Amino acid sequence: MDNTQTVGPLLADEYALEMMESAWAAGVHRLPVVMEVFFRKAPFKGHGAVVAGTEQVADYLSSFRFSEADLDYIASLGFHPDYVDYLRQGFRFTGSMTAMAEGTLAFGSEPVITLIGPYEELQWFEARVLNIINPQMLIATKAMRVVQAAGDDPVLEMGLRRAHGADAAIRHTRAAYIAGVAASSNLEAGRQSGVPVRGTHGHALVMMLGDELAAFRLFAEAQVKRGKPPTFLVDTFDVLRSGVPNALKVAQAMGLERWAIRIDSGDLAYLPKAARAMLDGAGYSREHVKIAVSGDLDEYLIRELKMQGAPIDLWGVGTNLIVSSDQPALGGVYKLAAVMEEGVWEPRIKLSENPAKVSIPGGPKRLLRFADGQSGMFIADLMALPHEPLPDPAAGYLLFDPDHPWKKKRVRGFTLMELTRPFITEGVRVGAYPSDGDAVTEARARLLEQRARFWPEYLRFVNPEPYPVDLSEALWGLRQRMIMEGRHQGE
Amino acid sequence: MDNTQTVGPLLADEYALEMMESAWAAGVHRLPVVMEVFFRKAPFKGHGAVVAGTEQVADYLSSFRFSEADLDYIASLGFHPDYVDYLRQGFRFTGSMTAMAEGTLAFGSEPVITLIGPYEELQWFEARVLNIINPQMLIATKAMRVVQAAGDDPVLEMGLRRAHGADAAIRHTRAAYIAGVAASSNLEAGRQSGVPVRGTHGHALVMMLGDELAAFRLFAEAQVKRGKPPTFLVDTFDVLRSGVPNALKVAQAMGLERWAIRIDSGDLAYLPKAARAMLDGAGYSREHVKIAVSGDLDEYLIRELKMQGAPIDLWGVGTNLIVSSDQPALGGVYKLAAVMEEGVWEPRIKLSENPAKVSIPGGPKRLLRFADGQSGMFIADLMALPHEPLPDPAAGYLLFDPDHPWKKKRVRGFTLMELTRPFITEGVRVGAYPSDGDAVTEARARLLEQRARFWPEYLRFVNPEPYPVDLSEALWGLRQRMIMEGRHQGE
Repeated sequence: MDNTQTVGPLLADEYALEMMESAWAAGVHRLPVVMEVFFRKAPFKGHGAVVAGTEQVADYLSSFRFSEADLDYIASLGFHPDYVDYLRQGFRFTGSMTAMAEGTLAFGSEPVITLIGPYEELQWFEARVLNIINPQMLIATKAMRVVQAAGDDPVLEMGLRRAHGADAAIRHTRAAYIAGVAASSNLEAGRQSGVPVRGTHGHALVMMLGDELAAFRLFAEAQVKRGKPPTFLVDTFDVLRSGVPNALKVAQAMGLERWAIRIDSGDLAYLPKAARAMLDGAGYSREHVKIAVSGDLDEYLIRELKMQGAPIDLWGVGTNLIVSSDQPALGGVYKLAAVMEEGVWEPRIKLSENPAKVSIPGGPKRLLRFADGQSGMFIADLMALPHEPLPDPAAGYLLFDPDHPWKKKRVRGFTLMELTRPFITEGVRVGAYPSDGDAVTEARARLLEQRARFWPEYLRFVNPEPYPVDLSEALWGLRQRMIMEGRHQGE
Repeated sequence: MDNTQTVGPLLADEYALEMMESAWAAGVHRLPVVMEVFFRKAPFKGHGAVVAGTEQVADYLSSFRFSEADLDYIASLGFHPDYVDYLRQGFRFTGSMTAMAEGTLAFGSEPVITLIGPYEELQWFEARVLNIINPQMLIATKAMRVVQAAGDDPVLEMGLRRAHGADAAIRHTRAAYIAGVAASSNLEAGRQSGVPVRGTHGHALVMMLGDELAAFRLFAEAQVKRGKPPTFLVDTFDVLRSGVPNALKVAQAMGLERWAIRIDSGDLAYLPKAARAMLDGAGYSREHVKIAVSGDLDEYLIRELKMQGAPIDLWGVGTNLIVSSDQPALGGVYKLAAVMEEGVWEPRIKLSENPAKVSIPGGPKRLLRFADGQSGMFIADLMALPHEPLPDPAAGYLLFDPDHPWKKKRVRGFTLMELTRPFITEGVRVGAYPSDGDAVTEARARLLEQRARFWPEYLRFVNPEPYPVDLSEALWGLRQRMIMEGRHQGE
């Protein structure tokens, strides 16, 4: 039964059904609401995160249907039979979804996804939408950092064996590719999303034959027959005393011109330097014969090894990328921002003991990115209420910091980019790509283009400058008023 | 297309195909080998890990077949057409699998799974087997710690929105249930694996109505109609000034006897104490009206809150359990231990610059757990070679520490437990459970029973005593010899 698949129309939190049934019993289940998906704090002590997963969310929402078996299970939990019968009458997503395109850089508090629709529908989809978005954005962001550290060198993703199951292995490899890794070891991600796949050989081949030289020869023969330059894994027994000498013997005997070695353990500064000297000494220059390394790499270690002058040409990154070791979860949330009352969107706010958890009310919000008219470099993002006019570059626009409103500046001559686009309208998917490979290719290009338009100060690994995410005066004023009123509610 | 599913017969590393093709070209692809899955270091600076995922591995291996589409994709990568034709002739798993049952406590270096079969088959399945086992054992172990910390209080798993995708959400909830959590929010895990599901309500219901009192009333009415005691989420606006007073009003007006509150933010020691005082003051004793908390809990914070006397009855644990925040990957590996040559298992060893990475050669190994004949408490585990006789309790057996062989003791009157059992024989699944729910129920009971037989010193959170995992004298001697010989290979 398990040729590896995951099914899951019931991938939702039980409490959604509790709330949906309560709302249904009271007749308020079809009230139109606006829900926003956003993160409060960016991962890795930075400010931005790479958008990934919005295509999958749109596919999920627009294709969702309960099966009879799903509804039978729900009935078995004790929900009211009349309510289960109600769900049986074709419950699906009838609302709309706007979202940032994959490969966009999003910042804290910005709605990455905005859903508009009946309360009951949006409540049902909450947990699975976050389950898609949170890890995919996290891994894409981690991968962007790893790729930044590697500079012009290619990064190979090879984390399948440590990823959190099948779905993570496939989707997060895809996310890493959007963020700039050159290729992956994962065949299924290759087939589903067009990620280029690459591979060398492992220790097992050497151990099976019990003879490293024989294993290298056998491997090289098969590779050469297919016109592929072999990469020899040289650390099964001893890198410098066995692995590199055996690789050299095979290369010389077979007249190989382009080949590589891979080092998977030991010190990754010393061993590549020593191996490079042996390769160079035998006449195999860095131009033709490369050194790949793997083993507990992340953005920090890559940068460190480069600073130590390790002559490494390709970086194989596994665990630390695919599970995002130093921060394995992104805390994206899904919050109600407005409710339709008598034809008007009434804003709603979530207060909290914790000031960082107070939400930004109102919506569906408009989300704009200002760029300098001359250089094209990004200046700031702006969230505004739906009825507000677009800022006018000729008249200028007053941007201010919502936490410190005395920090303000008037900008002129800017260009504006709308950060979101429609994905679903009245339940119907719009603008889907012909294939996931196309979606991924475009997202990868988008991120590359966008990254170049952020000053490096904003993308620094350590203590980056906060990129300004401002509220319009109207939105800021609304929020302040609602915080004050909300505090009164409890008095 | 995405009513949430993951497919993946190609969930494998590309390098497996490179090695398989090389071995095939040289005619050594069907050589019988033994592969072992084990971890070198247990997670969380402990020594043990809870076995989970072996049932899924057995299902995966025994049902694996390539589809035509899979083979077309492989051909598109440039593998030799003759080789792809070879794979087309019914490539599948024809070997055997023995493994520890789910819910067993495994220790470092012990083969959790042993596979015996042709080299090419075992090479192909490597990455996916680890992709199943690594995260499931990790999360089960994390969950065991959280459950330990909560003592007699129930723990609710609620991490779906932060889990790494669909598969992680389902399988890792299952793993957490094996490890002792009482229930989960995840409906799909409930349906697939029989995990009990529970839920309360969220902030959205309160925010939609814009009126906490109205929301509590509406929620309580629907719950009471189904005979369910309502749990009110009291922190949408202000726990003590709004949430608890409104919950009390509804409870009094409706004459509720059994109900609960949930606090999801703010200080989780102070707020429960203050809320408890309000509840007690209104005549709602802890026996009837409970307090649940959630929000960034893990085993350390739970223990801390209990030490501070917070009157909490139920712990909702999300992110930190489902992604195992403080250690999000288990480094389980898959290593070749022996090769069949002329009808005899020849041991193989993986050496390394890093002493911890040197493997234990030989196999298929026998794995035994010694228990004290009187108390039933476990004494030590023993790995031995296949031909060795079973230790005799009457004659006694000399156990010694393989790293410090002068630390030895002779034990007598012990009982022995075989730690592994057959899952697949000649490609055919044996001993499968009628349903996954049955597998889970039995695994949960197994862990509960086993945990009680380890001295608490071995399971302490901080700096636990290492549980002895010993090698037989024959296996120890073999390893020492092969290390010495292996070092010669590079000289």
